[in-house]
Amino acid sequence: MKFDLNAIRNIVGESGVLVGTDASSRQEQIWSSKHVDAQAIVRPRTTQEVSSLLAYCYEHNQPVVVHGGLTGMVYGATTRSCDIALSTERMQSVESVDPINRSMTVQAGVKLQEVQENAAVNGLMFTLDLGARGSCTIGGNISTNAGGNQVIRYGMTRDMILGLEVVLADGTMVTSMNDMIKNNAGYDLKQLFIGTEGTLGIITRAVLRLREQPLSSECAMLAVNKFDHLPAILKTIDQRLGGTLTSFEVMWHDFYSFITEFKDHPPPLPKDFSYYVLIEAKGGNIHHDRENVEGALASVVEAGLAEEVVIAQNQAQRDAFWAIRDAVEKTVIDQPMYVFDVSLKIGSMEAYVDEVKRRLQAKFEPCYVFTFGHLGDGNIHFNIHAGKDPSLKHAVDECVYEPLRKINGSISAEHGIGHEKKEFLSVSRSTTEVQVMRTLKQALDPKGILNPGLIFDP
Amino acid sequence: MKFDLNAIRNIVGESGVLVGTDASSRQEQIWSSKHVDAQAIVRPRTTQEVSSLLAYCYEHNQPVVVHGGLTGMVYGATTRSCDIALSTERMQSVESVDPINRSMTVQAGVKLQEVQENAAVNGLMFTLDLGARGSCTIGGNISTNAGGNQVIRYGMTRDMILGLEVVLADGTMVTSMNDMIKNNAGYDLKQLFIGTEGTLGIITRAVLRLREQPLSSECAMLAVNKFDHLPAILKTIDQRLGGTLTSFEVMWHDFYSFITEFKDHPPPLPKDFSYYVLIEAKGGNIHHDRENVEGALASVVEAGLAEEVVIAQNQAQRDAFWAIRDAVEKTVIDQPMYVFDVSLKIGSMEAYVDEVKRRLQAKFEPCYVFTFGHLGDGNIHFNIHAGKDPSLKHAVDECVYEPLRKINGSISAEHGIGHEKKEFLSVSRSTTEVQVMRTLKQALDPKGILNPGLIFDP
Repeated sequence: MKFDLNAIRNIVGESGVLVGTDASSRQEQIWSSKHVDAQAIVRPRTTQEVSSLLAYCYEHNQPVVVHGGLTGMVYGATTRSCDIALSTERMQSVESVDPINRSMTVQAGVKLQEVQENAAVNGLMFTLDLGARGSCTIGGNISTNAGGNQVIRYGMTRDMILGLEVVLADGTMVTSMNDMIKNNAGYDLKQLFIGTEGTLGIITRAVLRLREQPLSSECAMLAVNKFDHLPAILKTIDQRLGGTLTSFEVMWHDFYSFITEFKDHPPPLPKDFSYYVLIEAKGGNIHHDRENVEGALASVVEAGLAEEVVIAQNQAQRDAFWAIRDAVEKTVIDQPMYVFDVSLKIGSMEAYVDEVKRRLQAKFEPCYVFTFGHLGDGNIHFNIHAGKDPSLKHAVDECVYEPLRKINGSISAEHGIGHEKKEFLSVSRSTTEVQVMRTLKQALDPKGILNPGLIFDP
Repeated sequence: MKFDLNAIRNIVGESGVLVGTDASSRQEQIWSSKHVDAQAIVRPRTTQEVSSLLAYCYEHNQPVVVHGGLTGMVYGATTRSCDIALSTERMQSVESVDPINRSMTVQAGVKLQEVQENAAVNGLMFTLDLGARGSCTIGGNISTNAGGNQVIRYGMTRDMILGLEVVLADGTMVTSMNDMIKNNAGYDLKQLFIGTEGTLGIITRAVLRLREQPLSSECAMLAVNKFDHLPAILKTIDQRLGGTLTSFEVMWHDFYSFITEFKDHPPPLPKDFSYYVLIEAKGGNIHHDRENVEGALASVVEAGLAEEVVIAQNQAQRDAFWAIRDAVEKTVIDQPMYVFDVSLKIGSMEAYVDEVKRRLQAKFEPCYVFTFGHLGDGNIHFNIHAGKDPSLKHAVDECVYEPLRKINGSISAEHGIGHEKKEFLSVSRSTTEVQVMRTLKQALDPKGILNPGLIFDP
């Protein structure tokens, strides 16, 4: 049997299939100029269409790569000319919001920002938040188990998903649209699909957990000179803010001093400290919450843990603080720039960052390293320039990843593995662990047609 | 090859194997007088011993049933005379506590209360809490994804587990002792084993996430007359307490009025209301948190949502409020008593409870129904007396479970399925979902030697 695009047109309609320049004029990911190379981009509208499409592809051994918002950082949406791309761009229905149950039912192609806005108009909040909110899709967030700015309080995407609908490689529809906080009636199947980058099934719909909108929001920045003061500050603030802390971000001096050179990012604190902590707290009482933040910050200053502190007095100041943390694109001083996303125990962090910088500086000249991240979650990001020769990427990777091996760190805190990091998977996962992953892949996608080659090789 | 207890003695030592009356004198579960019927109770001390034992059992097609604290509610530890019971009672080592990383590493047989105490002496908190804390083991909590009293804030056991070590049916050791909040380096394998009742692997060790000890604790009880005021109260309190709310328990009139007849449980509020809400909040500022609770309660009274309110003024009063909610054993007015654990959307709850009671009362005389539960989590418990004939159990089950079918409720919110509920699994899970569960079981335990027949039949 020959694979036939007309058969696919019969499933998704004429306009559901893009070929030729309609397909190849599209970018492969939103931060790259590389264009899509694939047999076709197929755009189903419903779970039933995804099911029929996969049943057909399974029968014809046709590999399928899922496209969401294309904001991934690990080349998870890269296609080969033999693949078809399955885009969720026509699956953008917000099906329902249930304010009493505090849940929302959506199709996979809905943008994160639209989810947030639909929650907000119902007086509720969807607690996933990250820079790509205007482009990324909830299906992509779920399949990569996205992290973001509020993990310390609300967890990863996994923790915000009540139910899922998934289509398996052979077209089987697994509808597990649970809308309850608790359900121990058998295996919690959604866990299989969250964070597995589309390799075990394609997510088509989800039930999302919503939370109450906070009534107060406090934001502050602290300057700190010693690394080992950071976990002590985290501990004090987390305890004294009693459940309201939503973010504990840290910018290293290299990042903060560079960003605040730009005129549109004036420094809220002097530029001569080693670390800058951005905290945010969301609570239910505007007066008490402000006093709590003031009290907690005063106590860390009195204890000699922080050098200087500034509290945002209004929304504009809050936005300005966050804009510094979020101005990651300013660090693109040249191409190529390499971005990293690792996690490790806070107690191992200072020595690790020193070692990475030492390794990089010994090897590359010039070398620029920008360090920042969700430190409250143990998550560090590096943006690294190591010269113009793109063939050096692998040597840069080694400088960042290899030191994680002996301290049981993760080569991916929140971005996933994709094609980009699979060569280094052994830093963070044992042969046995990868073997169990293969067992699952084999059980659910025995022909290996779904996102082939992502995370690990067959 | 014949299965040989001496081979097992070689693995776990002479004292590691109990047979004859040493085994049969033990109870099968702590709330039953039924005794263990099995070839032997085997008590390994280490993961390596569990691995060798399972490799041997796998080779000899020997079924194995895991025994933790034996506090389960769904007959998950029941053995047949052909089984061996693998008890974790000699795996009780708290291996380490890391106060900076806020994590603890334990063997599976450690009691929940010991976990809580080890966290507390380090100024931290393990956030799982339930009545059986003095007997249940952390391995059992993980394998059943236990819920308990603080789910609304901290989630189920799943949300408190950073890493796991598991032995597969064939003896393969899968060591995934992650100690980070974030790790997206490949599939999150621990999710496979949490809540699957030991059917996919045997948990031997775990890394637990700890939280900061709260600095304040507030407890209050509210009397409410209309069911639809309950979600409105939950919404108001959850929002105004801004992240500090840890419990939102509800006792129906049948439960509250019965318990407070006992002299050791004097009623803090008059007994003529329909519902009694027990709330608890834990925060970081003793004065603000008290004021917040007072303010939130005043607003629900002013809004006409609650009839009366009382705030615990000290620890003794707090304990007395909780003692009423926890006095579940008082409802054993005769044997047999049937206990139920279901979850559903709050919006469906009033009609559901009415329907269950109507069905029961139409069928059984006399009939006593005690209703209470973790309402903030959508979780209702029933304790039901329906006469002395134990053969009526199935008819009682039908009264409780069948009405869940049309409202997508769960026949098990937090206790699991075990042997007890599997006949009703189709109320909450589709044929396709059960088929995916079977696919996983087949992939990881192809001979079906681990906890055979739990949750679903092969």
